[in-house]
Amino acid sequence: MTIFSLDNYNIYVGDVKAALASFSLKNYSQVMVICDENTRQFCLSNFIQYIDNQKINIIEITSGEQQKNVITCEKIWQQMLDFSADRKAIVLNLGGGVIGDMGGFCASTFKRGMDFIQIPTTLLSQVDASIGGKLGIDFQGVKNAIGVFNDPKAVFIDPFFLETLSLRERRSGFAEIIKHALIADAAQFNDLLKITDLTKVDWQKIIPLSLQVKQNIVQQDPFEKNVRKALNFGHTIGHAVESFFLETKNPLLHGEAIAIGMICEAFLSVKKNKLTKEELQQISDFIIKTYGKTTIPSKSFSFLIKIMQQDKKNESDAINFTFLKNIGQFEINHTASEEEILESIAFYNQL
Amino acid sequence: MTIFSLDNYNIYVGDVKAALASFSLKNYSQVMVICDENTRQFCLSNFIQYIDNQKINIIEITSGEQQKNVITCEKIWQQMLDFSADRKAIVLNLGGGVIGDMGGFCASTFKRGMDFIQIPTTLLSQVDASIGGKLGIDFQGVKNAIGVFNDPKAVFIDPFFLETLSLRERRSGFAEIIKHALIADAAQFNDLLKITDLTKVDWQKIIPLSLQVKQNIVQQDPFEKNVRKALNFGHTIGHAVESFFLETKNPLLHGEAIAIGMICEAFLSVKKNKLTKEELQQISDFIIKTYGKTTIPSKSFSFLIKIMQQDKKNESDAINFTFLKNIGQFEINHTASEEEILESIAFYNQL
Repeated sequence: MTIFSLDNYNIYVGDVKAALASFSLKNYSQVMVICDENTRQFCLSNFIQYIDNQKINIIEITSGEQQKNVITCEKIWQQMLDFSADRKAIVLNLGGGVIGDMGGFCASTFKRGMDFIQIPTTLLSQVDASIGGKLGIDFQGVKNAIGVFNDPKAVFIDPFFLETLSLRERRSGFAEIIKHALIADAAQFNDLLKITDLTKVDWQKIIPLSLQVKQNIVQQDPFEKNVRKALNFGHTIGHAVESFFLETKNPLLHGEAIAIGMICEAFLSVKKNKLTKEELQQISDFIIKTYGKTTIPSKSFSFLIKIMQQDKKNESDAINFTFLKNIGQFEINHTASEEEILESIAFYNQL
Repeated sequence: MTIFSLDNYNIYVGDVKAALASFSLKNYSQVMVICDENTRQFCLSNFIQYIDNQKINIIEITSGEQQKNVITCEKIWQQMLDFSADRKAIVLNLGGGVIGDMGGFCASTFKRGMDFIQIPTTLLSQVDASIGGKLGIDFQGVKNAIGVFNDPKAVFIDPFFLETLSLRERRSGFAEIIKHALIADAAQFNDLLKITDLTKVDWQKIIPLSLQVKQNIVQQDPFEKNVRKALNFGHTIGHAVESFFLETKNPLLHGEAIAIGMICEAFLSVKKNKLTKEELQQISDFIIKTYGKTTIPSKSFSFLIKIMQQDKKNESDAINFTFLKNIGQFEINHTASEEEILESIAFYNQL
């Protein structure tokens, strides 16, 4: 068990049963587990008997990013009422980013806030959502438009859960690991370049390295006023691409969209005379090799720009970007014009 | 202008135009004013030209407690999106408790949080909602079931706005002033007893005294873990009574319900050998003289108990109460049985 100590809580990396033994739940008035049909079957069943509380209630929601909305929140809050939950209850959010973000938001807002523990079951949520306290739901097609910042009481990361994921899902989470390396750890990026088979990765070793990058940045800037925007690399365009494909028959996983976003934003970094063309080549080769390519249709362009204009990181009307200065170094608070953004998408499309 | 300094923000008691001059709004990306049809017409029109910002957008919602729900939040969030609001925007919540609680909640959750200023226009919200950071909405008939704790950047209390209120509304707000005196200021309670005509009260003098009681309590306990429960006096039963009448043709104003709750809970205080019968008599005489009487129908009893069981202040299954030890002194963390609660309502009904 590796224990990462943050200011307000610990992240336990290792067997969830051992983590549960370290963090006592017995004094809470009840434990509510928010899960979906998959995490209930493949994850919760492995450790529910180790939850030390007389009263355990399960709130199961349907899996999927499309569920991350106000309607599902209302269902969750309704069940919390039905279970007569009080403020001394605790919520365990067992699932990927949707469950962590939405379950954390529901816990933070029910009766003005209950304690909660994040138990991320996807690689993406393990490396991305376990630090930073960002909680929320999508609204009117805008990702995470509604939410709060609030820290969990603890995070339990069990690498065993990754075995329950498809290769595609693991690959999606891998995008955030690439991002952390690109913005702050050139040495790790060089190590990642050697990975050719995602079924043979020592996640237990890689995850803590990636968490370290995020921890360093978030500690400096918990409310995303400045350097935390570094973590937005690849996300301005990536989020918009994700939103667009969400409405099609072939939605992209979050990391797949962010991978596209990272190529586009690396292109813009070159355009702004930061990154070298050689570095862009290295990044785009590695990403295309890992993720393949999904052409962005030109009919999406006006939608993409509109979504980017609504990005929370913007100030006034300019679209905010984080660029790479080098591999392993970022620069926040840049902007790009609509034309430049569309040029970066054209660059990606012709790869 | 009286300025109350709290830990995180100031309360300006006096002309809103002077308050606006003290608190610069010009560096915000835009100012959104949340109001209803009444506060837009009778309050905003008096000072909108003093708001120092290039971009002012108005979000008007329909007035009324019934609007304090998720559906109205969605309308507010939608308009914030339509106005391309970013995190550097600020929200002015111009209205009573509904607008303050719900507008503050929407501001605190839109893009994970924007700054907001409370401009309470009712006596109730001026003395109750301007300290304490409690924000939220009703859900499934449960008052304030969903919300967060979050402080505004400032509160502007303009006694002029009270002129726009009906006598009934002023009387409703007066209940929180009575409550503050009952729990912590016996001298003020004695002064209040002399008030026989609510149209002739020096609010500018009384409001700061009442704010002082709340400030003292909230500073000791911002997240309602202990002494802040003192402010709940009259509210356990009062909230339930309010919820019941909300569904009838004759809803009670918040303070009218709290006035009933204070009599019932003063009765329970006597029952538990705290308060004397003489003090109960003094309290109930004054409240009945001020508010008249609304019989609580017996068909409501099971509903009332159910609502009380869902109160946020409860731990496990016991219904939590704050009792009076004397007039001017409280004791938190008491409980009462269903029978005792119904007995207190019977006491009120026979007055």
